Amino acid sequence: MNLSSLKFFRSLRQDNQQFAVIGLGRFGRSVCSTLHNLGYQVLATDVDEKLVSEALTEEIVSHAVQLDSTEPAALKEAGIFEFDTVIVAIGNYVQESIITTLNVKEAGVPHVVAKASSEVHRKLLKRVGADHVVFPEYEAGCALARTLTKPSILDRFDLDPDHSIVELIVPDEFHNKTVAEIQLRNRYGLNLLAVSQDGKFKINPDPSKRLERGSAMVVIGCNKDINRLPI
Amino acid sequence: MNLSSLKFFRSLRQDNQQFAVIGLGRFGRSVCSTLHNLGYQVLATDVDEKLVSEALTEEIVSHAVQLDSTEPAALKEAGIFEFDTVIVAIGNYVQESIITTLNVKEAGVPHVVAKASSEVHRKLLKRVGADHVVFPEYEAGCALARTLTKPSILDRFDLDPDHSIVELIVPDEFHNKTVAEIQLRNRYGLNLLAVSQDGKFKINPDPSKRLERGSAMVVIGCNKDINRLPI
Amino acid sequence: MNLSSLKFFRSLRQDNQQFAVIGLGRFGRSVCSTLHNLGYQVLATDVDEKLVSEALTEEIVSHAVQLDSTEPAALKEAGIFEFDTVIVAIGNYVQESIITTLNVKEAGVPHVVAKASSEVHRKLLKRVGADHVVFPEYEAGCALARTLTKPSILDRFDLDPDHSIVELIVPDEFHNKTVAEIQLRNRYGLNLLAVSQDGKFKINPDPSKRLERGSAMVVIGCNKDINRLPI
Amino acid sequence: MNLSSLKFFRSLRQDNQQFAVIGLGRFGRSVCSTLHNLGYQVLATDVDEKLVSEALTEEIVSHAVQLDSTEPAALKEAGIFEFDTVIVAIGNYVQESIITTLNVKEAGVPHVVAKASSEVHRKLLKRVGADHVVFPEYEAGCALARTLTKPSILDRFDLDPDHSIVELIVPDEFHNKTVAEIQLRNRYGLNLLAVSQDGKFKINPDPSKRLERGSAMVVIGCNKDINRLPI
Amino acid sequence: MNLSSLKFFRSLRQDNQQFAVIGLGRFGRSVCSTLHNLGYQVLATDVDEKLVSEALTEEIVSHAVQLDSTEPAALKEAGIFEFDTVIVAIGNYVQESIITTLNVKEAGVPHVVAKASSEVHRKLLKRVGADHVVFPEYEAGCALARTLTKPSILDRFDLDPDHSIVELIVPDEFHNKTVAEIQLRNRYGLNLLAVSQDGKFKINPDPSKRLERGSAMVVIGCNKDINRLPI
Amino acid sequence: MNLSSLKFFRSLRQDNQQFAVIGLGRFGRSVCSTLHNLGYQVLATDVDEKLVSEALTEEIVSHAVQLDSTEPAALKEAGIFEFDTVIVAIGNYVQESIITTLNVKEAGVPHVVAKASSEVHRKLLKRVGADHVVFPEYEAGCALARTLTKPSILDRFDLDPDHSIVELIVPDEFHNKTVAEIQLRNRYGLNLLAVSQDGKFKINPDPSKRLERGSAMVVIGCNKDINRLPI
Amino acid sequence: MNLSSLKFFRSLRQDNQQFAVIGLGRFGRSVCSTLHNLGYQVLATDVDEKLVSEALTEEIVSHAVQLDSTEPAALKEAGIFEFDTVIVAIGNYVQESIITTLNVKEAGVPHVVAKASSEVHRKLLKRVGADHVVFPEYEAGCALARTLTKPSILDRFDLDPDHSIVELIVPDEFHNKTVAEIQLRNRYGLNLLAVSQDGKFKINPDPSKRLERGSAMVVIGCNKDINRLPI
Amino acid sequence: MNLSSLKFFRSLRQDNQQFAVIGLGRFGRSVCSTLHNLGYQVLATDVDEKLVSEALTEEIVSHAVQLDSTEPAALKEAGIFEFDTVIVAIGNYVQESIITTLNVKEAGVPHVVAKASSEVHRKLLKRVGADHVVFPEYEAGCALARTLTKPSILDRFDLDPDHSIVELIVPDEFHNKTVAEIQLRNRYGLNLLAVSQDGKFKINPDPSKRLERGSAMVVIGCNKDINRLPI
Repeated sequence: MNLSSLKFFRSLRQDNQQFAVIGLGRFGRSVCSTLHNLGYQVLATDVDEKLVSEALTEEIVSHAVQLDSTEPAALKEAGIFEFDTVIVAIGNYVQESIITTLNVKEAGVPHVVAKASSEVHRKLLKRVGADHVVFPEYEAGCALARTLTKPSILDRFDLDPDHSIVELIVPDEFHNKTVAEIQLRNRYGLNLLAVSQDGKFKINPDPSKRLERGSAMVVIGCNKDINRLPI
Repeated sequence: MNLSSLKFFRSLRQDNQQFAVIGLGRFGRSVCSTLHNLGYQVLATDVDEKLVSEALTEEIVSHAVQLDSTEPAALKEAGIFEFDTVIVAIGNYVQESIITTLNVKEAGVPHVVAKASSEVHRKLLKRVGADHVVFPEYEAGCALARTLTKPSILDRFDLDPDHSIVELIVPDEFHNKTVAEIQLRNRYGLNLLAVSQDGKFKINPDPSKRLERGSAMVVIGCNKDINRLPI
Repeated sequence: MNLSSLKFFRSLRQDNQQFAVIGLGRFGRSVCSTLHNLGYQVLATDVDEKLVSEALTEEIVSHAVQLDSTEPAALKEAGIFEFDTVIVAIGNYVQESIITTLNVKEAGVPHVVAKASSEVHRKLLKRVGADHVVFPEYEAGCALARTLTKPSILDRFDLDPDHSIVELIVPDEFHNKTVAEIQLRNRYGLNLLAVSQDGKFKINPDPSKRLERGSAMVVIGCNKDINRLPI
Repeated sequence: MNLSSLKFFRSLRQDNQQFAVIGLGRFGRSVCSTLHNLGYQVLATDVDEKLVSEALTEEIVSHAVQLDSTEPAALKEAGIFEFDTVIVAIGNYVQESIITTLNVKEAGVPHVVAKASSEVHRKLLKRVGADHVVFPEYEAGCALARTLTKPSILDRFDLDPDHSIVELIVPDEFHNKTVAEIQLRNRYGLNLLAVSQDGKFKINPDPSKRLERGSAMVVIGCNKDINRLPI
Repeated sequence: MNLSSLKFFRSLRQDNQQFAVIGLGRFGRSVCSTLHNLGYQVLATDVDEKLVSEALTEEIVSHAVQLDSTEPAALKEAGIFEFDTVIVAIGNYVQESIITTLNVKEAGVPHVVAKASSEVHRKLLKRVGADHVVFPEYEAGCALARTLTKPSILDRFDLDPDHSIVELIVPDEFHNKTVAEIQLRNRYGLNLLAVSQDGKFKINPDPSKRLERGSAMVVIGCNKDINRLPI
Repeated sequence: MNLSSLKFFRSLRQDNQQFAVIGLGRFGRSVCSTLHNLGYQVLATDVDEKLVSEALTEEIVSHAVQLDSTEPAALKEAGIFEFDTVIVAIGNYVQESIITTLNVKEAGVPHVVAKASSEVHRKLLKRVGADHVVFPEYEAGCALARTLTKPSILDRFDLDPDHSIVELIVPDEFHNKTVAEIQLRNRYGLNLLAVSQDGKFKINPDPSKRLERGSAMVVIGCNKDINRLPI
Repeated sequence: MNLSSLKFFRSLRQDNQQFAVIGLGRFGRSVCSTLHNLGYQVLATDVDEKLVSEALTEEIVSHAVQLDSTEPAALKEAGIFEFDTVIVAIGNYVQESIITTLNVKEAGVPHVVAKASSEVHRKLLKRVGADHVVFPEYEAGCALARTLTKPSILDRFDLDPDHSIVELIVPDEFHNKTVAEIQLRNRYGLNLLAVSQDGKFKINPDPSKRLERGSAMVVIGCNKDINRLPI
Repeated sequence: MNLSSLKFFRSLRQDNQQFAVIGLGRFGRSVCSTLHNLGYQVLATDVDEKLVSEALTEEIVSHAVQLDSTEPAALKEAGIFEFDTVIVAIGNYVQESIITTLNVKEAGVPHVVAKASSEVHRKLLKRVGADHVVFPEYEAGCALARTLTKPSILDRFDLDPDHSIVELIVPDEFHNKTVAEIQLRNRYGLNLLAVSQDGKFKINPDPSKRLERGSAMVVIGCNKDINRLPI
């Protein structure tokens, strides 16, 4: 997570109980339903009457209103400007997305997250004042590509440019050896955090724990050490 | 990562050096450029001549051809069926996406990853034989919602349903205390893995290391213990 | 009729008194009106309000409702999932057709017949679970072509790949001869089943019955024997 | 087969070796490929360049030209008017279909078959001179409906309004009885023509042949006798 | 006027007091308003609600209803089939025009006039039973062309292929001469019917009447004599 | 023919041998083919390439060029401005029609005829300088309406508001009487000009000529006298 | 301002208190809001219901009605023809603009101002009777170009082709000199009218006033003298 | 002219000899032709090939290229980024306009002028970095409204919020009086700058010069004094 995003998340209020989501496409609906399931109040809007009524029928929002978010008066009447955090989830209509973001920021909403659909869209959102921009299609593409090229690295958590935590499939070379025998710290400078067993993870496994080919293990350390693993 | 995905990734060849990507929208281009930058051979196709020539101009692929992937003969002629792994990145055209996936699987390609744009699309892709399905707009929406509701939890790595690794902002209560003083293991049953300092992380910090409000820390443990942290 | 179709028809309930038909295009309307005229209850649906009200006005159905069959909730509310046999008559919209078929099969309807509009459509319908697929435009084209090339063979009933019953125009060579004289069994190994007279058929005609050029006769036997007839 | 159709087929030349097909939709392609596979010369045309070149690539025609069949000059130049039999396979464009049929008949082609897409289309084709009209979507719908309502009658060959040949599943009542025991002629006035065994048919089965539940049998006789069968 | 048209007009009832006009485009409105101004009852229909209400507002019809004339039931309900004479004024939609004409003739309306928009449209209208076909754009074009090429012949009334009445501008050669002096009958075999004076015509002018350059005269006679006039 | 039209036709040159026609719709083509058949040179233009090449193929023009007549430069380059008489035959595109007419008049073409499609179109054409406006759909509608209401009046030639020449079907009352007996001049103040016989007309028929029911006669006179005829 | 415009403005009534504006696009709304803010009554119309209700909501008009201004009856009913001055602000729809202008002038409105969108549009508006035509996109383009090429001339007021008043940035050569010292009248034949100071202008500045680089001055005189200034 | 615009124009280079104009709509063409006529080099671009070739044919630019200005590479290749001043004349496509403006500013062009089509468009242009924004439709509407309400004030030059120069029609009260007699300075505190005579202006007219009703005069002074004039 980069520094400007870090600042944005630090600025959010911990006790925020309600969110407004503008745009009920795939991304917007997914934001709404997750928030709603976590017990938060969600007000959603879309210019398409049908998407609004579907959101109410599927009960993924607390309230939903049809409105054209490029009209400041409509946003105001719906109370959007009273929210602390607004998510602009209009990814496919660049113009509507940036006009909406402009409207919301000009009205003084402190935290505005917006979804970009291209690099230039991302830049425009920043220019009109979006506090945080997400770009899921791009990010998911990058992530898939990395996984496909290192299939034994199942997941990866980048701490900083030099350090990571990675979940990897136990290499053949480690098969049937104990945690003590593989000497992860001595030979690779890495710490073993957990080992999977029947789909669950054992944190801080015993040194006598025997590793099995095909199960997963989690390690922390320098990237250059991780790259030396026999995977 | 669920079990069926785990199996899929285990089945991939480690020494695979080339990939075919069908569809050059935002997601497809992002897959291509990441693979290409990592040094892999990428053959990309799209039905839109313009996107094909842009991909060549921007040098995000090794080769690119214009073709209609709903025509098996076209895919065969382009050599797509010779690949070990094919990514069907046609998210917005459900019919084209499933016909293409059907074509590629019927021709015997062992590993086919496809991008879904809705829940029913995901089901259809599974029915016609996709080995792995990604659904970025949905997953990104869920992730954003979780982050917004727990803004002090900056990132999260779910090991299994009960255990996680989380990166969180140092709680006010821990400000100015040493690692030893906060007694993470005694009071919460959690292990401290790393602490940030000026944008970089210190792995296995000294017990005398003093935590600062607003910097980040990484812990591992049970979810119910993590939830007891004073955040 | 192939084996899998045979199994499908064997599985249908003889005392079934009601059917649901999804799609009121030309094919769907023809299914509805035939069923309705035979005294069966028919519930029909279409996404187009106009077609629904026309079906009611023309009294070719018992009930008809406007609904979008790609929405499982709509199908459920209309009671479609309670039917024993559902006909998906959405030939021209491949995506809607397969999503509907998926919905109906996932909801547990035991017998689902679907209409295909192309070879790939047929495959997709099979993949999503259709029990029986009809493909009228293709089959009618084949049938017409066969009739045009053998115009004296008016109709044909294929028993198995080697045996058939055929209705044919009496060949010139048989004109004015009696059934006995043409020695169909001796010379061709075929049995004569019926002979037409003034637009009606006489079954098991007398050996003394005289055949007329231009009238029709029906024979049963091996295809290779039928092909030896002087037509 | 009705009387006017009977006359039409009687008028066709037995030694006709070539056909012209106008329209390369699903029905037209199916006519072409069947004729071509049977060894006939086929000239096909369509207004859509793409369909024409696909027909050539798939080798379902001998020759194919792009032309607008509503222009008499184009038809003439392509030599369509020299054919003895022309099939107008333009089902979905009523206006183009009837103008083409008018053009072809006015130019003196003796046998013109046309495909209708609705009842009014059928009437218009007759008015402008089509010699034979097929209406597959309608006919297939009727046929399916009849099969669904009498699932034990697998296929049916109507000789005239009163007599038919039917293929039916052996009724439970006949299970394990011999051909002699069921006394089809005595009790029902019907003749048994064939009995299936392992997917093939035995014509004129022995009286001692034992019938099995679930296999098929073929009988000929009056419809009112057929309806008395215990199915 | 050709013979078949002559027969059509002879068959019309002299005391007909009402007409139905289908189609309210420019031509249809012009038919309606002229009939209405002459005191006849006119029922007009159009598929476009707006044109129907305009016709009522402008009071160019007695009654007007919105209906789709390709639906026989709609025509019947509106009472169109009770009329003695129906004008099908749907020039620009060939398919709708011929289906409507077919509907009206099949329902037994004795006199049906239809407007054609092209030569093939005219033929189709004849085939489906129109009793009289008008083709204004074509006829007006011909008439304008003839007038432009013989501008001194202002108007022409063709009696039969050899005889005409023509209105022409007084030729320079006749200027300032009396009716007697120009000897129209002697020199040209023509009869002078009328001469214009200040915008009005004098029928059977006096022999002493003096002709003026630029005024108009009307003559009757053989075409070959008319062509000999010094114009 | 009204006075302003009269002036327009008087101003045309008798020896004009060539015409330009802008617009190749139904009306324009009809003007072109009539002029061409009469032996005149015709240059035609249309914005639609297809209509231009059809006109050349059908040989209804001497020359034809594709151009956008709303561009003065295009008209100039094609030499349109050199013509003495230009016909603007763009009836269905009001804006293009009036801009073209403006262009042609501004460039100094002395005689411009334009086709109107509505009353307001007619006014606009006059405002931008058209010398003569024709409005065929309107005029043909009026003419048909008059004929339908007076079916025994087959054709009519209006000399001025008070006098006409009419062709009418011989009234029943005159059947079998001689020309002398009906006393047209004495009883009605009308002159008999011609009587038809077997499809041809006899001019100045003998007083002993006997009239037949259903044949045609032509008279000249005052309208109020014509209206007194027993038709 | 040219002579014909001068005449138009002279003819307007000084005490006119109300205006009608037809068309509520950008230009029309700007006319309305300025007039309304100056305290005048404004009646506005547009064919688009949404623009009409927006104008009422934003209170930039006194009254607003939805109507189609190409229909004279609609304009009459709304009372548009009673106004002394009507502004036709339909710039982007040439045909609607000129038909509306024609309607309004034909109904006798004395002062009609219309907005043109192209040179030919301007001509057509003049032909149908517009009293004054504005062409903002053209005029603004010219003005911007002139300013960009002479950026030190901030604004310009053309009195006649030879004389102007210009606002210009004080040239470097005049910096720190007094009004007396620069001798504008002696050396250039120009009169100094005003000098800016802190964003305000001093009219008739003292001869001892000192000019500053970058501030503005206003002079009057002959264009050829203005061009001699050291800018 | 407001302060930020003043700054913008001060920053322009006096000796700039070339400009780039993006967008060849009405406004863009008007900018191009004015610059070109003043002797400057103009490079113009548009996404529409037709507008580009028209600009070259009409010789209103030095160079013109077809390109999509939302693509930075295309702008770079055309050399747009080398210009000192670029005019973004894409008024009607908000998204294209702001992306283009962003591209041009990001590439470092020092002076960018853009045309807005609405208030929100103006704001967005400012956000993405436009140095100067013009909004002609809005400004022209305001100007027309002011002129219509004070028709005797023919033109107006606002110096600052309190002082103006105005051209006005000589009030009736001043008719036939000399410059000395009307005592403009004594009674109104205004200076008389010029008086029109036969369409030309006399600067600093003689005190004995007599004013005529309907001619024009130009005065300078405070707005509140100008408002006291007897107009």
